[in-house]
Amino acid sequence: MAVRYELIKTCKQSGARLGKLHTPHGTIDTPVFMPVGTQATVKSMSPEEVKELGAQIILSNTYHLFLRPGHELVQQAGGLHSFMNWDRAILTDSGGFQVFSLSENRKITEEGVQFRSHLNGDKLFISPEKAMEIQNALGSDIMMAFDECPPYPAEYEYIKASTERTSRWAERCLKSHNRPEDQALFGIVQGGMHEELRRQSAADLTSLDFPGYAIGGLSVGEPKDIMFRVLDFTVPFLPQHKPRYLMGVGSPDALLEGAIRGIDMFDCVLPTRIARNGTVMTSQGRLVIRNAKYMNDFTPLDPNCDCYTCKNYTRAYIRHLHKADEIFGVRLTTYHNLYFLVQLMKRVRQAIMEDRLLDFRDEFFDQYGLHDNTKGF
Amino acid sequence: MAVRYELIKTCKQSGARLGKLHTPHGTIDTPVFMPVGTQATVKSMSPEEVKELGAQIILSNTYHLFLRPGHELVQQAGGLHSFMNWDRAILTDSGGFQVFSLSENRKITEEGVQFRSHLNGDKLFISPEKAMEIQNALGSDIMMAFDECPPYPAEYEYIKASTERTSRWAERCLKSHNRPEDQALFGIVQGGMHEELRRQSAADLTSLDFPGYAIGGLSVGEPKDIMFRVLDFTVPFLPQHKPRYLMGVGSPDALLEGAIRGIDMFDCVLPTRIARNGTVMTSQGRLVIRNAKYMNDFTPLDPNCDCYTCKNYTRAYIRHLHKADEIFGVRLTTYHNLYFLVQLMKRVRQAIMEDRLLDFRDEFFDQYGLHDNTKGF
Ligand SMILES: [Zn+2]
Ligand SMILES: [Zn+2]
Repeated sequence: MAVRYELIKTCKQSGARLGKLHTPHGTIDTPVFMPVGTQATVKSMSPEEVKELGAQIILSNTYHLFLRPGHELVQQAGGLHSFMNWDRAILTDSGGFQVFSLSENRKITEEGVQFRSHLNGDKLFISPEKAMEIQNALGSDIMMAFDECPPYPAEYEYIKASTERTSRWAERCLKSHNRPEDQALFGIVQGGMHEELRRQSAADLTSLDFPGYAIGGLSVGEPKDIMFRVLDFTVPFLPQHKPRYLMGVGSPDALLEGAIRGIDMFDCVLPTRIARNGTVMTSQGRLVIRNAKYMNDFTPLDPNCDCYTCKNYTRAYIRHLHKADEIFGVRLTTYHNLYFLVQLMKRVRQAIMEDRLLDFRDEFFDQYGLHDNTKGF
Repeated sequence: MAVRYELIKTCKQSGARLGKLHTPHGTIDTPVFMPVGTQATVKSMSPEEVKELGAQIILSNTYHLFLRPGHELVQQAGGLHSFMNWDRAILTDSGGFQVFSLSENRKITEEGVQFRSHLNGDKLFISPEKAMEIQNALGSDIMMAFDECPPYPAEYEYIKASTERTSRWAERCLKSHNRPEDQALFGIVQGGMHEELRRQSAADLTSLDFPGYAIGGLSVGEPKDIMFRVLDFTVPFLPQHKPRYLMGVGSPDALLEGAIRGIDMFDCVLPTRIARNGTVMTSQGRLVIRNAKYMNDFTPLDPNCDCYTCKNYTRAYIRHLHKADEIFGVRLTTYHNLYFLVQLMKRVRQAIMEDRLLDFRDEFFDQYGLHDNTKGF
């Protein structure tokens, strides 16, 4: 089996899980945050920096790599690890989410999805089998089954039909997956915000015995309290001895609330996306570096952070770089944000070890200035 | 004296000089190429990378830093070295070149230049005294006198008047320079393409006994053979025991021809600018990475290069990054181009040591594919 989850301990206070995920490219301490490297690069970072800041695994996007440079090219290069010079673990998504959010003229049938490339309008088709072919060529350690992520809100009947089709697609993925010995295929539980659909989806997928399960269809615009409630009733449908991955979630509060609900893996573009815009996460909450008040501020982004950025550069300098559209400014804020989330997950693991994750959450939120479940970060 | 030039040896074959430039931030082996960090950052690079690739000194632009973030802010930060976290030497230009090339509504008087900021249209004024005030605040190791760089071509009478004014400005710069103990002020020889004007300019400036001299007003659109001819007759007007800096020149052929003519220092945005566009300099000539022929090319940018980029990444990957507008692609090509020129200068110094710089030039040009003085690189 390509990937194996080892449950180390459960937090007595919260029920959160401390674990290890053994992969062909290293063992990952969970709960873990996975930085996103959409186009075979974590935006603005070098692989050495992504390692240095502590990332154990990154996510890359099947849809984007399929369109450009093409999965055959990546395969010719010896796979994605070799192509991008990253020797730690890689998870690839299924392409499903991007087909629905980025492409044009989508047409979903039982067979798969026909769509037009957002890059050049080319008419393309992805089926469960094609998604496996692409991901087998990419050679990621963890592949995701091809699913539909239904919009929010949507009609119950639509979500039900979509969820059932996603289950049928999952079975086809499993059948056409060609490298189970060194690539683990995870199933994705859908079902919208409905408990009975989530239960059915989880039952369908667990009957197929995937080596790991993702919860998809969340963080799609619903209020956070609804997301947390869906997690409350969905996670118990998943097996104890397999890893659980909450897709597309990366705000500090959702990482904490997710871990408390038994989630082991998270990914999100949030830290890199807001960094490009000059927004950083600090122990005291978020900070918009372009604000005039930082013009003469010669302190680090976060006085409690010991990352490369915070050890060497001032808010005044980083503000200057962002105002002047200098790439190095984006590098500095990106590095800090990724480091911040990686460190947060280290502290989450420590708190689980000490059976005090609920206390840690409250302490963290107090300092961060988050006291409710609003869609902030 | 802030900066001292030590002449180590003269190449018996070419007359090129091997030297050491002692500065408050380290000793620099000459001839040297100085990467440009216009806005207090070498575009896309970290200071650690600029060091690692071997740069001994960088240039930063007075005009840009005066406009943004402002020299007072940099002074508050403890000077430019501290602001940008660079502990090797820094040379700042005078702002003159940018006032003439970038700003709008310039009006030159004996007193100085009135102009409008290219950023926001603000009405500003730079005089020789102001240029010194700014550079003293920035705290660069080497400052440049405020000069006018006349356009090419221009009327003889205009160049003559301008050159004479530049000499008067140089004297005012020297008088208002406040930190001669730790900042060296270099004079700039102007005079267009005219030998008699260059001679007069050099005589004016050497009578003021600057610790170093630049040759300005070249690489402004004139054919390369004219530039080399101007160097041929101008360099002999400069003293042997002071460093000589050819401004704005960075193509491999001009670096070689300049060194052969007795130049010690060079700067240019060429390597970083073309890198952003995906063009790299290699031992076999230049290479445009976006070309389709590199799509499946899994060799390094330059098989003869041992830089970080060439040791770890393929043309296919770098092409993908550039096509996908990923910052890391710009970082990789920028690193390589700067490394290429720094290595070229190392080899130039070695060839001077071995009294064979003319042979080295011919060998290099043969490989690079340069056999004439056309404006290629
Ligand atoms: Zn930091
Ligand atoms: Zn190289």
